[in-house]
Amino acid sequence: MSFRRVAIIGLGLIGGSIGLALRDDGLGTTTTGYDADPAVRTRARARGLADTICDDPGDAVRGADLVILCVPVGAMREAAAAIAPDLSPDCVVSDVGSSKRTITDALTDALPGFEIIPAHPVAGTEHSGPDAGFSTLFNQRWCIITPPPGANPAKVAALVDFWESLGAMVETMDADHHDRVLAVTSHIPHLIAYTIVGTASDMETVTRSEVIKYSAGGFRDFTRIAASDPTMWRDVFLHNKDAVLEMLDTFLTDLALMREAIRAGDGQMMYDTFSRTRAIRRSIVALGQDDPRPDFGRSDHK
Amino acid sequence: MSFRRVAIIGLGLIGGSIGLALRDDGLGTTTTGYDADPAVRTRARARGLADTICDDPGDAVRGADLVILCVPVGAMREAAAAIAPDLSPDCVVSDVGSSKRTITDALTDALPGFEIIPAHPVAGTEHSGPDAGFSTLFNQRWCIITPPPGANPAKVAALVDFWESLGAMVETMDADHHDRVLAVTSHIPHLIAYTIVGTASDMETVTRSEVIKYSAGGFRDFTRIAASDPTMWRDVFLHNKDAVLEMLDTFLTDLALMREAIRAGDGQMMYDTFSRTRAIRRSIVALGQDDPRPDFGRSDHK
Repeated sequence: MSFRRVAIIGLGLIGGSIGLALRDDGLGTTTTGYDADPAVRTRARARGLADTICDDPGDAVRGADLVILCVPVGAMREAAAAIAPDLSPDCVVSDVGSSKRTITDALTDALPGFEIIPAHPVAGTEHSGPDAGFSTLFNQRWCIITPPPGANPAKVAALVDFWESLGAMVETMDADHHDRVLAVTSHIPHLIAYTIVGTASDMETVTRSEVIKYSAGGFRDFTRIAASDPTMWRDVFLHNKDAVLEMLDTFLTDLALMREAIRAGDGQMMYDTFSRTRAIRRSIVALGQDDPRPDFGRSDHK
Repeated sequence: MSFRRVAIIGLGLIGGSIGLALRDDGLGTTTTGYDADPAVRTRARARGLADTICDDPGDAVRGADLVILCVPVGAMREAAAAIAPDLSPDCVVSDVGSSKRTITDALTDALPGFEIIPAHPVAGTEHSGPDAGFSTLFNQRWCIITPPPGANPAKVAALVDFWESLGAMVETMDADHHDRVLAVTSHIPHLIAYTIVGTASDMETVTRSEVIKYSAGGFRDFTRIAASDPTMWRDVFLHNKDAVLEMLDTFLTDLALMREAIRAGDGQMMYDTFSRTRAIRRSIVALGQDDPRPDFGRSDHK
C-alpha cells in the first residue's frame, strides 16, 4: 500500500517542507493543507505548499489516507480534535513532533479507534513559518517512527516508504526511548543555547554590543539554535520534562567537574576531555550528518 | 610607519592564515616563519605560508620589524624567550592569543624593554595545524588590540593598519576587559560545547551511535566547536581562569532558573526567554558576523 492523498495540518517549516517535497517527488501524490492561521494559509497558497489549501481542517482531511499533524507539540490534541469528525476510518494519522510519549497519549485519547503512528523527522533550520520550508529538508536526515504496540504492520511499512520517498532514512523505536535520545541530541542543546544567549544578553560588565561584535569566537554558533521557534520549544520542554531533567542533571554534573578542573588548574583533565570530543565530530561528518567543510561551509568572511 | 618584514612564530591555523593573507595583500611585505615542530615547517614550506620558513627561531625574527607569536597561550613565554636574543631593538612584538592579561605579563617579563602590543583576532575554524589556514580568515572579523599603558602610539597605529590590511576591523581595549568579553563570547561557549559533547558520549541509556545518527536535531552544532584544538583550549582555561569562572557561575545561575521552570512547567518563563534570544541572532547577522542563510548555509542535506 502507499498513500495517494496526504493531508498536512500545520504549514510551517516542517509541514511546508513535506508539501514541497511531495510536489517534487514525481509520485503523483495529491496533497491538501490547512493551518489555523489565515495569514499562513495565504502564504501557503502563494508558495504552493500543497495542491489545495483548505480554510477548514475537516475539508483538508476528508478522503485523505495519511494525515500528518505538523503543529507545535502543545497544539496536537486540539488539532486532532478538530479533524476527528472528518477523518476516513482507515486513514493513518501521524505527526512530526519532537517528543513522542505525550503526543502518542494525546492522539490516542483524541482519536479513539484510528490508526495512530507517530513520527519525528530529525531535521530543521532556525527559521519557522510558511516561508521557511524547502523540498530537500529531509534529504539524508533520519526520521524516527514510534509505532505503538498493536500498530498495523502494513501501515507502518507504508509510513516508512513515505518518509523514504521524501529522502529520509527511517528508524523505528519505542516512544520513551525516542524521548531520551532526543533529549540528548536536540532538547538539551537547545536549552543550553537559549540559556547562554540569554546570559550573554544580560551581562553587567560586558555590553550587548560587544557580545554581538565578538560573537565569531564561538558564541554565534549558539545563537542560530537560540533563534528557533519559541512556541515549539516551550512545548518540547513542557512535554518531555522527565527525560530533559534527567539528561540536564547529567550535564550539570559533568559541568561541575569541568568547573573544578578550571579552578584547580587541572590541565590534564581538560586536555583529555577536549581530545575525546573530536572523534564524535569526525563520526558525524563521516555519516553525512554535517557539512565536511570547515565552519559548516559558512561564507560570511570570504 | 608600516611593517616591511614580519616574522610569524607558530604556523598553525592563525599563523598560517596571516602568512597567506600577507602574500595576497599586494603590499610587498616580506615574511619569515618558524614553528617548533619540524613536520609543521615542512608543510608550511609546501604551502608557502611565509616567504622563508626558518629552522631556527632566531633566524626568523632577525631584522623583522613585527614579530607575531601564534602559539598556544601556555607556550607564549617559552616562545618569547627563544627569540629574545635575536629581536631587533625597535621591533614590535605582538601575538594572537585568546586571553590577554597573562600573556601581556608573560611577554613583558620575558622581553624587558621591547615594545609589546598584544592582539587577538576573533576568527578561526574548528581545524588546526599548518593545513588549516586560508588567506580570507580575517575578512570582516574583529581584531582586538590591547596596548599596555605607555605603548608607543605610532606603533599601536601601525599594528592597527597591519590588521586592517589583512581584512580585519580593529578595536582597542584594556586586557582585563578583553578577558571578560572573550570569556562570554568564546571561552564559555567552548567550555559548554566540550562538556555537552563529552556528556553525550558517555550516556548509559543512549548509545554513541544514536547520538551521532540523530545529531542534526541540534547536537551537531556543538561538535564543531568541540573539535577545536585541545592544547589551545586547555591553555585558554588555565590562563583566563578568573573571568571564565565568573561568567560560568552566571550561566549556571541562569540554567538553574531554567531547570526550575521546566520542573514547575512554567511555560511563560520559557516562552519569554526563547523570544528574547532571537533578537541577538538578527543583530549578529545584520553586523556581518554570521552567514545570513538558514543553517549557516550548510549544504549537507541538499
